[in-house]
Amino acid sequence: MKSIRRELWFEVPTRRSFVNITSQVDEALRESGIREGLCLVNAMHITASVFINDDERGLHHDYEQWLERLAPHEPLEQYHHNRTGEDNGDAHLKRQVMGREVVVAVTEGRLDFGPWEQIFYGEFDGGRRKRVLVKIIGE
Amino acid sequence: MKSIRRELWFEVPTRRSFVNITSQVDEALRESGIREGLCLVNAMHITASVFINDDERGLHHDYEQWLERLAPHEPLEQYHHNRTGEDNGDAHLKRQVMGREVVVAVTEGRLDFGPWEQIFYGEFDGGRRKRVLVKIIGE
Amino acid sequence: MKSIRRELWFEVPTRRSFVNITSQVDEALRESGIREGLCLVNAMHITASVFINDDERGLHHDYEQWLERLAPHEPLEQYHHNRTGEDNGDAHLKRQVMGREVVVAVTEGRLDFGPWEQIFYGEFDGGRRKRVLVKIIGE
Repeated sequence: MKSIRRELWFEVPTRRSFVNITSQVDEALRESGIREGLCLVNAMHITASVFINDDERGLHHDYEQWLERLAPHEPLEQYHHNRTGEDNGDAHLKRQVMGREVVVAVTEGRLDFGPWEQIFYGEFDGGRRKRVLVKIIGE
Repeated sequence: MKSIRRELWFEVPTRRSFVNITSQVDEALRESGIREGLCLVNAMHITASVFINDDERGLHHDYEQWLERLAPHEPLEQYHHNRTGEDNGDAHLKRQVMGREVVVAVTEGRLDFGPWEQIFYGEFDGGRRKRVLVKIIGE
Repeated sequence: MKSIRRELWFEVPTRRSFVNITSQVDEALRESGIREGLCLVNAMHITASVFINDDERGLHHDYEQWLERLAPHEPLEQYHHNRTGEDNGDAHLKRQVMGREVVVAVTEGRLDFGPWEQIFYGEFDGGRRKRVLVKIIGE
């Protein structure tokens, strides 16, 4: 069994954003030489997500609006978590809706995707350096 | 390390539906001969889900009502994504709540399930042929 | 390839609660002797979750309030599932938001975590014995 581990680093200047990381995951896979296996991609921070969906600007706008409706950033006082001095209570909730991680099949040396699948880093509390972990195991 | 890859195809006639795919995943596992490992089952389309829950008709009705409340199909204009000519903006949101994939342990050649666990394909934008990927790795 | 399987048992006295299970998963990993691989941790029951987030009491209060707003326990009659004699319709919905499982990378014999990641069992229908499965594969 082979394995590879890579960290992808981000510093999103805005509070919230979606970043397409498919090509970076693909590059880690090519470096690994793994032909058959599983690829885990996860946010290493608990106010961020990794998820798979469409790379379409209108859709990302819709996610932004929808998540803000389900778990609004303000008023800050609505979240007990913010009593710790944080202002990211909403980000911990948004991340649960969008998910922490994806697992992608590796087949014949490629990410085994359907027609529109793309991997995104979802930032809900930006403005600082944060990481995504890529771990691939197989042969 | 052994691995197997199978595609399951669906054409759900209605816009939304839940389909129990446990026996098809089980069949792929038996064909693989894998005794210990991990089994990934994921929707290959970004308006569909794979999830694990109960095979109970009342519950599926509740999911349908609840998802429609969290992310209503209409009015279509509420989603920027629909400006591309699509009418499935809501489906991309519903799929995030229910999830893209499940990973199931394989133990002694069987899907290692709790008492009521069943795997479902969740369709949120039906009426055309769509796929689920089953990838199993192990020994 | 090595693998290990462990069951963690819980009996949460209240209907809902979050339990930090990180040290128990860590213990299973140490017993396994696996250095590089993937660790699956999943609820074996369909009214419970396993998720990764912060071990902060205020945040757990926020999750509790938020989930109760998204999928209220009462009135019981709002859920068709409860016509079966159950009163846990809401728990099946809450579990979908928080998720069934996490997959964690194993690197150099350790759970490969970001700075604040902790694994939780999320109970939404307590008062009886329920299980979490830990399955680790690798070398």
